[in-house]
Amino acid sequence: MNQAQKHVIIIGGGFGGISVAKQLRGKNIKVTLIDKSNHHLFQPLLYQVAAAALSPGDIATPIRRIVGKNSNINVLLGEVVSISSKESKIYLLDGREIAYDNLVIAVGARYNYFGHDSWSEYAPGLKSVSDALKIRERILLSLEEAEQMEDREARKPHLTYVLIGGGPTGVEMAGAIAEITKKDIQSDYRNISPKDSRIVLIEASNGILNGYPKPLPEKAKKMLKKMGIEIILGKPVTDIEKGKVFYEGGEIESYNIIWAAGIVANPIVKMLDAELDRNNRVIVKEDLSLPKHENIYVIGDAAHTKNKQGQVLPSIAPVATQQGQFVGKLLAGRYTKGKDVFKYKDKGSMATIGKAKAVADIRGFKFSGFTAWMLWSVIHILYLIDFRNRFHVFIEWIWYYFAGKRGVRLITDRSSCEHCSIKDPQDKESVNVQGVKK
Amino acid sequence: MNQAQKHVIIIGGGFGGISVAKQLRGKNIKVTLIDKSNHHLFQPLLYQVAAAALSPGDIATPIRRIVGKNSNINVLLGEVVSISSKESKIYLLDGREIAYDNLVIAVGARYNYFGHDSWSEYAPGLKSVSDALKIRERILLSLEEAEQMEDREARKPHLTYVLIGGGPTGVEMAGAIAEITKKDIQSDYRNISPKDSRIVLIEASNGILNGYPKPLPEKAKKMLKKMGIEIILGKPVTDIEKGKVFYEGGEIESYNIIWAAGIVANPIVKMLDAELDRNNRVIVKEDLSLPKHENIYVIGDAAHTKNKQGQVLPSIAPVATQQGQFVGKLLAGRYTKGKDVFKYKDKGSMATIGKAKAVADIRGFKFSGFTAWMLWSVIHILYLIDFRNRFHVFIEWIWYYFAGKRGVRLITDRSSCEHCSIKDPQDKESVNVQGVKK
Repeated sequence: MNQAQKHVIIIGGGFGGISVAKQLRGKNIKVTLIDKSNHHLFQPLLYQVAAAALSPGDIATPIRRIVGKNSNINVLLGEVVSISSKESKIYLLDGREIAYDNLVIAVGARYNYFGHDSWSEYAPGLKSVSDALKIRERILLSLEEAEQMEDREARKPHLTYVLIGGGPTGVEMAGAIAEITKKDIQSDYRNISPKDSRIVLIEASNGILNGYPKPLPEKAKKMLKKMGIEIILGKPVTDIEKGKVFYEGGEIESYNIIWAAGIVANPIVKMLDAELDRNNRVIVKEDLSLPKHENIYVIGDAAHTKNKQGQVLPSIAPVATQQGQFVGKLLAGRYTKGKDVFKYKDKGSMATIGKAKAVADIRGFKFSGFTAWMLWSVIHILYLIDFRNRFHVFIEWIWYYFAGKRGVRLITDRSSCEHCSIKDPQDKESVNVQGVKK
Repeated sequence: MNQAQKHVIIIGGGFGGISVAKQLRGKNIKVTLIDKSNHHLFQPLLYQVAAAALSPGDIATPIRRIVGKNSNINVLLGEVVSISSKESKIYLLDGREIAYDNLVIAVGARYNYFGHDSWSEYAPGLKSVSDALKIRERILLSLEEAEQMEDREARKPHLTYVLIGGGPTGVEMAGAIAEITKKDIQSDYRNISPKDSRIVLIEASNGILNGYPKPLPEKAKKMLKKMGIEIILGKPVTDIEKGKVFYEGGEIESYNIIWAAGIVANPIVKMLDAELDRNNRVIVKEDLSLPKHENIYVIGDAAHTKNKQGQVLPSIAPVATQQGQFVGKLLAGRYTKGKDVFKYKDKGSMATIGKAKAVADIRGFKFSGFTAWMLWSVIHILYLIDFRNRFHVFIEWIWYYFAGKRGVRLITDRSSCEHCSIKDPQDKESVNVQGVKK
């Protein structure tokens, strides 16, 4: 390491962290990018893995492949457990400490169960590949369970799907589940029919896709209803237990509850000497650095930043990417510290509800239906990180469009299904192969 | 159900079971196909999932998609725990019993640890998607671990890969690991170089690819050696413990031990009123039925059958497929019970060792190198069950051939890695985010 070389540590290999690293490629700066997983995840498409439409490999790319070729960038698989802004050091789970000159915190967010962490067991969120696989297996297993049950009453909770949260994830997931349970299954099952499944989207506020411009939320609502999805608005969820969701004025029995209701920044930011908002996001200066520590930057879902109109920026990939580019340019010397400030360019928002069904707002132009869906597809494919993944996802979607069947309907691990009577064959203790039936 | 309709139960949705079901499509026979997983697995390519070259979705197809559209065929996700040939009934794990007129047992085989079942923990085999994912994560994690270790002596066991068994799985896996650790990694890691990795193939007998015609085993041996793989012949493994393999006259320290040494039929066949060979395979009559029970057939890896020369048929997909077709035709009335007997048509054998490196014997014609590799690729793609998977694998291989990078280098679950100092972030107890470093 060159004596004069600065050392920049980036925590997190999401959209924000990768964007910083890309700006620092080949520069005379030593960069260490630390992430607890070895891959960058294209989160906007994660729900498609949960919906058995894409394979994890289609939307995840090894971080090393993206930035590892540049000899000034080190990729480190590990978890940061502590940060000392006083000593300018971070600490890893295995006990190592690493000193930095500049620190970029791009640690993202996790689902917020509003203090009810026990709910997460019955209503998993959708943040990592393993979350998505868990949800995929629950959905597919629910159909297998129902197929084998003769009591129509008893099987109802197996065929009921509850999405909590009416943001893009909840809306997109509701649409995807409707396509699986109301269309794909028709020919493949004997005892269940599309009309047996019930899909409910519950949102605490009075509308879905809040923050999307009019008339897109209304159009999305119509599309969802047309697909047979029930929408319950203005009813916060009050409790979740095994197989049951309670909300103000009602309850729903379901073994397939998915949480998509609000997020909170990774708790590691609490260790910073900085003010947080009520979602744990760090309130940063206009150049995204900490008020008391000029050499520490926070970007993406972990940062509380505003646009020109004073509105807090949403937790979405474009914000994280643009902030990462800004900090990267600042650290690389292309922007001037103390002079340049971060400005967000809003390119629009979109959500897809099903095959040929989507809503989109691109720089003020509104689209819905097939056009919005084509736009959504093209934009998501263009932003997928490497060529290989773009190509794969493109092929998979073309296939789905014409063949109309989900690509990756695999159940590979059943350990998550407690209520299932179809037991996991890998659970050796439950199997008594050699003896007689007990 | 039609009163006159026969009920055929098929246990197992592998190559054998699927072939039987296909022959019975649309016939006036009620068919129940039972499997403990929801997908048919193209096992000859499973090692490519373990080697991060393919996604599980590329080589697995839901059984319902293959045979579920035919209304006379029921697909049942479940596990058979007992068979009563006296009462003509099978019993499921959940307590249900189902009566049959004809039973086809196509339950396949599992790895045989020769009585040392404890070895399976340290040396997993390669039979299911989750086995393959476990091995993939071990290999990828071993590189991440080694990258972070400064002590060159201590990191050796992390970069040592031991394959036990010199059959096609061991040979193909050794070649695939050599490609990952000696080629793919070159540009992506800072501290480890291709020459740091050591790959050892141990075989108890005196040759690899036994059963392949001359000169293919010798050619394969040369290819493996040229790739830097050590081959130890004539040395049975005597013990395996965490991080160590013992064999006659030596030992190797390695955290990446893979078992590919011999298989044994699924133990459920012990419940049949029939004679077994030393690998638990059921000795069947010439029409593949049981000597004492005409209405029960055993096919594939669970059956002991011979060719015209009196040699026992190997446990490979073509044998299972042809036997399934035979039994299916017998049950469908296209063959005559008591007159037609099963005859195996040997179309050859092949194994691939790496990019443009393979050996093949097709109806007596021997090939090696690029030609064999092309043949291997084409034949495997043609046999992949549905069009979608064929297309995907084709694309993935073309990509690998030109780009030279593994497609699916993802670590998604680290629970299997006990020796890793890089801890699984999902293991909440090991993480102390809010407090200070312990």
